[in-house]
Amino acid sequence: MTEPLFDKVAVIGLGLIGSSMARGMKKRGLAATITGFDGSADVRDRSRALGFCDLVADTAEEAVKDAELVILAVPVGAMRAAAQAIAPFLANGAIVTDVGSVKAAIVRTVASALPEHAAFVPGHPVAGTEHSGPEAGFAELFEGRWCVITPCARSTDASVEKVGALWTALGSTVETMTPEHHDIVLAITSIIPHLIAYNIVGTAADLEDVTQSEVIKFSAGGFRDFTRIAASDPVMWRDVFLNNKDAVLEVLGRFSEDLAALQRMIRWDDGQSLEDHFSRTRDIRRGVIDAGQDTADADFGRPHGHED
Amino acid sequence: MTEPLFDKVAVIGLGLIGSSMARGMKKRGLAATITGFDGSADVRDRSRALGFCDLVADTAEEAVKDAELVILAVPVGAMRAAAQAIAPFLANGAIVTDVGSVKAAIVRTVASALPEHAAFVPGHPVAGTEHSGPEAGFAELFEGRWCVITPCARSTDASVEKVGALWTALGSTVETMTPEHHDIVLAITSIIPHLIAYNIVGTAADLEDVTQSEVIKFSAGGFRDFTRIAASDPVMWRDVFLNNKDAVLEVLGRFSEDLAALQRMIRWDDGQSLEDHFSRTRDIRRGVIDAGQDTADADFGRPHGHED
Repeated sequence: MTEPLFDKVAVIGLGLIGSSMARGMKKRGLAATITGFDGSADVRDRSRALGFCDLVADTAEEAVKDAELVILAVPVGAMRAAAQAIAPFLANGAIVTDVGSVKAAIVRTVASALPEHAAFVPGHPVAGTEHSGPEAGFAELFEGRWCVITPCARSTDASVEKVGALWTALGSTVETMTPEHHDIVLAITSIIPHLIAYNIVGTAADLEDVTQSEVIKFSAGGFRDFTRIAASDPVMWRDVFLNNKDAVLEVLGRFSEDLAALQRMIRWDDGQSLEDHFSRTRDIRRGVIDAGQDTADADFGRPHGHED
Repeated sequence: MTEPLFDKVAVIGLGLIGSSMARGMKKRGLAATITGFDGSADVRDRSRALGFCDLVADTAEEAVKDAELVILAVPVGAMRAAAQAIAPFLANGAIVTDVGSVKAAIVRTVASALPEHAAFVPGHPVAGTEHSGPEAGFAELFEGRWCVITPCARSTDASVEKVGALWTALGSTVETMTPEHHDIVLAITSIIPHLIAYNIVGTAADLEDVTQSEVIKFSAGGFRDFTRIAASDPVMWRDVFLNNKDAVLEVLGRFSEDLAALQRMIRWDDGQSLEDHFSRTRDIRRGVIDAGQDTADADFGRPHGHED
């Protein structure tokens, strides 16, 4: 254990990300005290039982009182209300950060809700699983992952540095960019993949000639990877789509154009163009593996055989 | 070791599937002799070095001579040529089967190329990884997976039963359906997912504002799962798309319609409809896990932390 980075940290929102951060900070001794709060009494009770916070408060006020750092880990659509709820109780010089998957909209809505005497450092850990809730969190979630920090007019150099140090200590590599650039990068790497996965799973459910049991049986051919992504938290993703509308619609337009081009190649038996396109995408896969963002093990290292 | 199911088996095409079948049959003693052949001299040499066949022949003739079972494990577009190459040398009463991912087109083109004295049992093991070539194969690839058999006019009851027994012995569960129904089921569970994955990886590569290194860095947010699928063999998939055109275009049309509907919900801030759609797709994921087609471990059980 080294000297804690923070005296008191408050985590608002105790789902997958919030509870993982609390666990990670506790494991590494990054905060002298960690308090938690969640709008759901049920989640508060479950979090108390899990014990990853020193104290789970019954009000936002109690949680953020005297906190040096307040982490907003609620769905994107609930960020502004969460910011308003904590605003009157923030200590002088408190740093507020968030973990939302969109940044420009959060800068607009959260920054204006916070008092002048607090700094705001927007952040986005690019990590997660398809599971939700306080039980799903674990201390290692952020290790080896990227965290994007998008400083805004309400960020000070010192607050950006401290929030960056927290993510580094949690095992992430920090990258800084503007909120707008973050939103377009994440639209293609995360948001559109989720939208497409949700979409194809829905299309499958609506086919009259194919039963749901057949879809499930034969899902190992590729479909199951989409179902995993499409199992992610519906409320979180609804908010992400609605709050990053410009970038999502822009990238989606390009995706649909490109898909129409592939569809045309199939209709007109243009095998050479198809093969050229498919060969090109292999290079990007190699880049993902070389960068340590995935394993090269066949089938993601899923177990084969009857033992699974 | 039990009594071998077959005296001599010939495997034509020594890629991921062919070499995995040879390894699986050898491991379980399902054939007294296994011969292999591949159109590429390089693949033949590498397969000899790997040693998963008793003999890798230099001609298709030598490979299939006196074989009780001949397995065509070449890309779909090469099936007819492979059938024509072996046809003159097939033993009386030989059974020919294939492992192609489309079935109606193969029934049309392969059955007519084979002599009357041979039976043909079309098959499709729904198993695979994103890797290709003889080095990528392993004996357990088919364990716990489904194999679809689509009997045709050239199948006899006895030949269907024997091919089914082979797949059962390799660890798969056999399901029988018509070639046409197979093609629509696989269009949604496998073919369209691959097409979409190839497409989005291409769209990402073409964005002017986002560098390839950014796409790779932030791929853990969902994109990397698409890159895995899009790393599959380009020639194999080109053939699958072109040879299952009707079902692919039909399902793709539905997918695009559904995607346009989601796009409209985003444009018009219809959060309730988005959330309803996303909640519904979670049920299908649960079905996939309950059916043992995937693991419920977070993130496919990918390792977290610096040890990975």
